[in-house]
Amino acid sequence: MSLLEPVFSDSATVNELVSACGHDHVSVMEPDRIAYARDMWPRSLISQRGGSLDRPPDVIVWPANTEQVAKVVRVARRTRLPLIPFGAGSGVCGGTLPLRGGILVDLKRLDRVLKLDQDNRLLRVEAGIIGENLERELNRQGFTCGHFPSSIYCSTVGGWIAARGAGQCSSRYGKIEDMVRLLTFVDQAGEIRTSATAPSGCEPWSLNPLLVGSEGTLGIITEATIVLRRLSPDRWLRGYRFPDVPSGAQAMRLMLRMGLRPSVLRLYDEFDTLIARPGPGPVDEEVGESLLRSLGGKVGSPLKGLLRMSLPKLLMAPNILNRIVNLLPGGCLLIVMQEGPEEERTMAAEIIADLCRSRGAVDLGEEPGIHWWKNRYSISYKQSPMFASGAFVDTMEVATTWDRLLPLYRAVRRALSPLAFVMAHLSHAYREGCSIYFTFASAARDDAAAAGLYDRIWEAAQSAVIAEGATVSHHHGIGASKQRFLVRQQGEAHVLAEAVKSAFDADGLFNPGKLGLRGIDKREAS
Amino acid sequence: MSLLEPVFSDSATVNELVSACGHDHVSVMEPDRIAYARDMWPRSLISQRGGSLDRPPDVIVWPANTEQVAKVVRVARRTRLPLIPFGAGSGVCGGTLPLRGGILVDLKRLDRVLKLDQDNRLLRVEAGIIGENLERELNRQGFTCGHFPSSIYCSTVGGWIAARGAGQCSSRYGKIEDMVRLLTFVDQAGEIRTSATAPSGCEPWSLNPLLVGSEGTLGIITEATIVLRRLSPDRWLRGYRFPDVPSGAQAMRLMLRMGLRPSVLRLYDEFDTLIARPGPGPVDEEVGESLLRSLGGKVGSPLKGLLRMSLPKLLMAPNILNRIVNLLPGGCLLIVMQEGPEEERTMAAEIIADLCRSRGAVDLGEEPGIHWWKNRYSISYKQSPMFASGAFVDTMEVATTWDRLLPLYRAVRRALSPLAFVMAHLSHAYREGCSIYFTFASAARDDAAAAGLYDRIWEAAQSAVIAEGATVSHHHGIGASKQRFLVRQQGEAHVLAEAVKSAFDADGLFNPGKLGLRGIDKREAS
Repeated sequence: MSLLEPVFSDSATVNELVSACGHDHVSVMEPDRIAYARDMWPRSLISQRGGSLDRPPDVIVWPANTEQVAKVVRVARRTRLPLIPFGAGSGVCGGTLPLRGGILVDLKRLDRVLKLDQDNRLLRVEAGIIGENLERELNRQGFTCGHFPSSIYCSTVGGWIAARGAGQCSSRYGKIEDMVRLLTFVDQAGEIRTSATAPSGCEPWSLNPLLVGSEGTLGIITEATIVLRRLSPDRWLRGYRFPDVPSGAQAMRLMLRMGLRPSVLRLYDEFDTLIARPGPGPVDEEVGESLLRSLGGKVGSPLKGLLRMSLPKLLMAPNILNRIVNLLPGGCLLIVMQEGPEEERTMAAEIIADLCRSRGAVDLGEEPGIHWWKNRYSISYKQSPMFASGAFVDTMEVATTWDRLLPLYRAVRRALSPLAFVMAHLSHAYREGCSIYFTFASAARDDAAAAGLYDRIWEAAQSAVIAEGATVSHHHGIGASKQRFLVRQQGEAHVLAEAVKSAFDADGLFNPGKLGLRGIDKREAS
Repeated sequence: MSLLEPVFSDSATVNELVSACGHDHVSVMEPDRIAYARDMWPRSLISQRGGSLDRPPDVIVWPANTEQVAKVVRVARRTRLPLIPFGAGSGVCGGTLPLRGGILVDLKRLDRVLKLDQDNRLLRVEAGIIGENLERELNRQGFTCGHFPSSIYCSTVGGWIAARGAGQCSSRYGKIEDMVRLLTFVDQAGEIRTSATAPSGCEPWSLNPLLVGSEGTLGIITEATIVLRRLSPDRWLRGYRFPDVPSGAQAMRLMLRMGLRPSVLRLYDEFDTLIARPGPGPVDEEVGESLLRSLGGKVGSPLKGLLRMSLPKLLMAPNILNRIVNLLPGGCLLIVMQEGPEEERTMAAEIIADLCRSRGAVDLGEEPGIHWWKNRYSISYKQSPMFASGAFVDTMEVATTWDRLLPLYRAVRRALSPLAFVMAHLSHAYREGCSIYFTFASAARDDAAAAGLYDRIWEAAQSAVIAEGATVSHHHGIGASKQRFLVRQQGEAHVLAEAVKSAFDADGLFNPGKLGLRGIDKREAS
């Protein structure tokens, strides 16, 4: 039976959904079902490039408000159909793939700003609002969320919360879980629940921390109250070139532990520095060309020949490419951004400049910082040409404490070197530790081989992460891609996660087959 | 049957506990059982003054480490005896009362500092260490927790976490839930569980937020990793006299929303100001004397006569006492403490001084601040004379957003005025809102009447709190005293709390009868 075979032989269920959401806001049509059978998980993109389709939802609904979502949940409960909450579909882990079909609940019509509460600096919004639309509205009134994921143009507030996301300024403003104060969600009975209204950390016993990061497995988040901040119009941007990753990482650690709160600290390793710095880079042209230019006269003719090969060909020899990086002369670029009142900016700028100099860094002025600022959301859009050329690229963001950071960096690089070309940057730095954002690219002879290689890459990378005691994710979430690693890391404590799932979702209807949790129709799980 | 009747007709269970914890660390003796039948909940203190005893535990154990705790839990599981985790017994809500008997697990022998990790600024400790002992050890090495509850001499790290506590500097350092990074706990199966090691907010899906504030109902916390801070040797302390509570509250709100991070902001209302300011105050002598001195020539002879009555007599006319406060000339004292690097202290001091002046405040210099600092842990010890005199006193710490703060203050005062003498201060201020710490004192003709009055006071106060949409607690926890109000506030969402409880504690053995949750032997619940 084809995956696209219509599921509803009679229209009773569809009619119930239509009476919940309205006639124009329910679809069982093939183009819609195909469109919602994917998100931005590279594994899906490889399969689709190879002509295969992941399991589509049986029906898509576009409710207009929390009450309509509650009605949809009650239909699902009666018919025992899975429910998959959906924001903007820009997740990179397959979190919204309807692995077992069911009702896909697109929340984008829940896009209202309900209350901009200046007195309490709180913002109440519906979950489906797109981040950039929200920011523009807030900026007009002199405010900001302080949450800037690179997906801000194509992600929603509900998606940020469900995936426990982080924005580029999380070192200063925190991750989304630090910003959420109140959630409204629809539970398994189709009841609308709201946690108590209270300022930061005052709830004696709140369900919010469970829902943040639950990726749709415990209920459907429909509204959120998050903290609101006065827009900081002035910022200090700077670039420093460090001799290497260890010296730069040490400087970052010292800044944070002396109590500074820079909004952005991003330390690119040698190859990632090539991409981040101003001027044409390997994303805009052939990787080899850029490398050749950077290496100058340092490499002999055979290597030059290699580097002139096409990108996919080049990526089929990742070990050679990874070793070439050691020859790069560029050092490691650190981008710093400081906000806050003028006194704080001035004080921070002086301390940071001293500290970077004392660790052997060269001050590159404000240009690298301004370049990063201008291009801060564009990098993700540059992956399409890689896929179009037949190669693939993916990213892995993991985190650990400072003492384990460099061992983690080296272990993941070592594990991936034979399989993919790897680069990385440190970002999302906190007092106790930091995230590492790995980018890896590879290619295989055809899409089936690429899919196999992709799986081997993740197995190798995450095995290294778990062995080093780091987290399997920092802000992309778990989705379908990392769930087996999450379960491996949880170990025996996974039984407690299952127990919470049972409590919130006895029938297993909420986004089944995710986070390694039991859900309806387990035998069909991929 | 007397409450102190021995529970164990044979010694099989006791022998099992002895083989878990050692011979000297298990007791079924009457003096021990009586000692552990109470904490610092004033309701218990009133009953005991009246000669009645709350239900004691059947047996007390003093395990030495996590493994021994796990063994004790396995004994309880087999024998279906309740388990009550116990820190230092200074809780004021009856959280450790063994309402249904069982095994009281005193964790004070788990008092080791396991790792002071300077690289990552993390501290690993056992749950039973007393706060002040820990601080002294950290201070010797130049560090601090930044967590200073007024109970610091008689509370443990595990107690802070279990009750979701706050220290006096929470405006700068956060509440305990903001500091916890990793917990080790013993679950219902007697298994030792530890959440994943990760820096702030990096766990994709952590059980920590559930355990923080669970008050022993989900498992027994035995070790914790919390953030560590460099000791800040210098501090700026100051007192300001505001015309009234609204002008002072407005100044606090403005400081926080402009991004300042003072460690302490405490605004005392007119009567609380009498107690907080330097010099002899009503806690050290008769309430009436102090009032008389403050009122000067403003009151006529009949009132003077009233104020010369004994404290319990005086408190039997709370309405009059509460109205007298309106005549007080003192204004409202704001205590400010700022830490951090010199530049931050200087900048904050200037901004705060300007802001207070612009709101009509008088600068009182550093003396009121220094007075507060020196006496910051002593206030709680001054309640004994009140109880000894036949009166009673209690405190209620609730929180809400800034816009609702003054209505909350007025509503609680109005509800309590006929029943108790009330004073309050605002402390634990955050960007979105603030806590109000009410102190109320009253007296009745005998202890039975006092117990009844005490219950009416709490019913009136918490009903006002819930009607105003505030939290039923800010940092004292729920315990036995507030559980019915917590359940009322949770409303229908309480079913989700029950579901989590079932998941973690299927047999209902962990601290049954608390947080309004189902537990073993519900029909016996008070």
